[in-house]
Amino acid sequence: MTEDQPQRTGGLSRRGLLGLTGVGVAGFGLGMAADGAMHGASGSTGGAQSADNHPFYGAHQSGIVTPAQDRLHFAAFDMAAETTRTDLIELLQDWTIAAGAMTAGREIGEFGAVSGPYDAPPQDTGEAQDLPAAGLTITVGFGPSLFESGDGVDRFGIAHRRPERLVELPHFPGDALEEKRSGGDLCIQACADDPQVAVHAIRNLSRIAFGRASLRWSQLGFGRTSSTSTAQTTPRNLFGFKDGTNNVKAEDTATVDTQIWVQPQDGPAWLAGGSYLVARRIRMTIETWDRTILREQEAVIGRTKGEGAPLSGGTEFTPPDFEATGRDDEPLIDRAAHMRLAHPSTNNGTAILRRGYNFVDGNDPLGRLDAGLFFLSFQRSPKQFIDVQLNLAKNDALNEYIRHVGSAIFAVPPGAAEGSYVGATLFT
Amino acid sequence: MTEDQPQRTGGLSRRGLLGLTGVGVAGFGLGMAADGAMHGASGSTGGAQSADNHPFYGAHQSGIVTPAQDRLHFAAFDMAAETTRTDLIELLQDWTIAAGAMTAGREIGEFGAVSGPYDAPPQDTGEAQDLPAAGLTITVGFGPSLFESGDGVDRFGIAHRRPERLVELPHFPGDALEEKRSGGDLCIQACADDPQVAVHAIRNLSRIAFGRASLRWSQLGFGRTSSTSTAQTTPRNLFGFKDGTNNVKAEDTATVDTQIWVQPQDGPAWLAGGSYLVARRIRMTIETWDRTILREQEAVIGRTKGEGAPLSGGTEFTPPDFEATGRDDEPLIDRAAHMRLAHPSTNNGTAILRRGYNFVDGNDPLGRLDAGLFFLSFQRSPKQFIDVQLNLAKNDALNEYIRHVGSAIFAVPPGAAEGSYVGATLFT
Repeated sequence: MTEDQPQRTGGLSRRGLLGLTGVGVAGFGLGMAADGAMHGASGSTGGAQSADNHPFYGAHQSGIVTPAQDRLHFAAFDMAAETTRTDLIELLQDWTIAAGAMTAGREIGEFGAVSGPYDAPPQDTGEAQDLPAAGLTITVGFGPSLFESGDGVDRFGIAHRRPERLVELPHFPGDALEEKRSGGDLCIQACADDPQVAVHAIRNLSRIAFGRASLRWSQLGFGRTSSTSTAQTTPRNLFGFKDGTNNVKAEDTATVDTQIWVQPQDGPAWLAGGSYLVARRIRMTIETWDRTILREQEAVIGRTKGEGAPLSGGTEFTPPDFEATGRDDEPLIDRAAHMRLAHPSTNNGTAILRRGYNFVDGNDPLGRLDAGLFFLSFQRSPKQFIDVQLNLAKNDALNEYIRHVGSAIFAVPPGAAEGSYVGATLFT
Repeated sequence: MTEDQPQRTGGLSRRGLLGLTGVGVAGFGLGMAADGAMHGASGSTGGAQSADNHPFYGAHQSGIVTPAQDRLHFAAFDMAAETTRTDLIELLQDWTIAAGAMTAGREIGEFGAVSGPYDAPPQDTGEAQDLPAAGLTITVGFGPSLFESGDGVDRFGIAHRRPERLVELPHFPGDALEEKRSGGDLCIQACADDPQVAVHAIRNLSRIAFGRASLRWSQLGFGRTSSTSTAQTTPRNLFGFKDGTNNVKAEDTATVDTQIWVQPQDGPAWLAGGSYLVARRIRMTIETWDRTILREQEAVIGRTKGEGAPLSGGTEFTPPDFEATGRDDEPLIDRAAHMRLAHPSTNNGTAILRRGYNFVDGNDPLGRLDAGLFFLSFQRSPKQFIDVQLNLAKNDALNEYIRHVGSAIFAVPPGAAEGSYVGATLFT
């Protein structure tokens, strides 16, 4: 029994049970495990089975090249003060067990929401008990502050294992970042085809973290704004344009390997098979956009608004011809068009896997919808995002209509092996 | 041509076109209509047709006894300063035309999102152009402040037509209402099975209102928390319990007539066939709830958490036996149980049609999810809600876990006749 292998009690670490039941009623937690046989509960069997399950365990984490689901609940966490390496490991173990259950359409814990002892809080909060897995994926990431909290203290004994490439993103021109929407020691991306399933996942994982990590910020999203599979049609963002036509697709395994997964030679070894995740909350000033003439909208994007074809001609998937010119020898696709500046050919072949969602979070005091794009991208190295975003931040005609207000970066470890836990390679 | 019948230009009032294009570019709006034939646009034909369309026109507004859809975008508006009776009428006319198009799965305006003149802003914002109607309903209501703004000025010449029963809700014990989440001159409830469709509706109706009315507050919701049809299963709220088992169902037309629709004898005549809508944003302290033992959770609600059966026995739809007692002659369904206090038999037979949604709006600075139930109910008279809510606010065991933070009330006019507009009876 080493520090890294905490005692398990019926599938959840002892600390996990404490977390589930809260510090004040810790006794119930222990009672629960002891009472298991008495109550005849046979494990987490609630939740209808869905044909659309994505296993949590595997070489890579799911939720990256998985065909993008329709809904998102994303959460960033900070580790609590005074937590130890053991706390962090146990948290990741408890999250793994719960994620394995929920992604299979099962409730969490031994007793789920309703079959447990009546004198203990239910282990699962229960709002998803009649729902299928709905394609749920849970993807975990580590922020730079997990490795080095800035006060010089190596809280978790992993400072020396920080990936060299995992550094805070630089300040980009135009950034208007809010602290309360940025950063985080850990993140969980929960995607599903039913928002109640995604919300249930984040809620229960937050609950499991009680006393060890707490929500720093969170974001709901809908209407995936990128396809990540050739089997998906291209959805539209809140500018009304198709978004992600030229995205990396899961079926293009060569590009996925060279652009998305961290390779063994990249280092560090524990991150091989993982990726880097960048999250940006991009507020759209949609009221201004909506008063912009159609020609200007199309010029800003570089595509037609209906079909999504490049302004150089063709249909949606026709490769853009950036050299084609029209009147006065001006390029048909404007030099500042978003699509030109984001295109791999403008960025030395760099591609990133976008997996963002639309959001509307009510309205501001002036009656403007607080709406936009919650951008998520996965890439083999943060440099890929940084290079493209520097190009965009300096030159993109779209900047007149958007404002980056939140930002975070995470190293996404490889998938957990059955019987192990997500992130285990970092601690061995 | 009276004040009440503004000039129409191609299906939208002239003012509507101004609203659509914004004050700064009004010239384009007029240009659009004039250019219609030239551009060959034949009206709003975008958007796939769905089998699940609910017509906007009819004796009653849709979105009330319509089987509850899965997603909500609710918006409250205030009329702009200096607006006139004509402005209000034209706004309702423009909203009617747009609502008729969108609920049929069509884009708004003559040209929609992409077929219009290139030198004008698109009439439709375009993010729903590939999506079906997705069961969209748009339901419009009038707040007390529309009739009497409080400064004694009868802005719209309708003060004398205010329904006697349309008064601000009383302060209930425990209310912690936020001004920025309460009230409103007008409301629009947009429900659909796709959040992008509901958001598109509110966005475009807000845009049409530009210069005449502006968003006061808005709320997104998911996972309808009530069934309104016997064909629907009972969904769960974020307490993990089935919600709305005993709700009024559309198929029970006798109850719908006696409890939901305003009858001719109720007065005023213009509201016959309408209803009253109450909205309450109910924040749940889910972290506290989640630490409550299962027995207590069930006692608070009065039902089992799994099946949703009354604690007096049976299955979900077994009528509760409030007299049944157990140990120590204590009632099996606690005297303070939510279900008992809300039940018609405890409220002189009063029933209301609940049509609420779950919400999660990120988290607060302490890391607690800003989550709960956005309660919506329709009733023949506000007194029905007030009586039940007074009973609940004083005695409900659930009060320990909830906080009402937003509140609004609206008179919901009857449905619009084809060729007329929603609310027309108020102005004739």
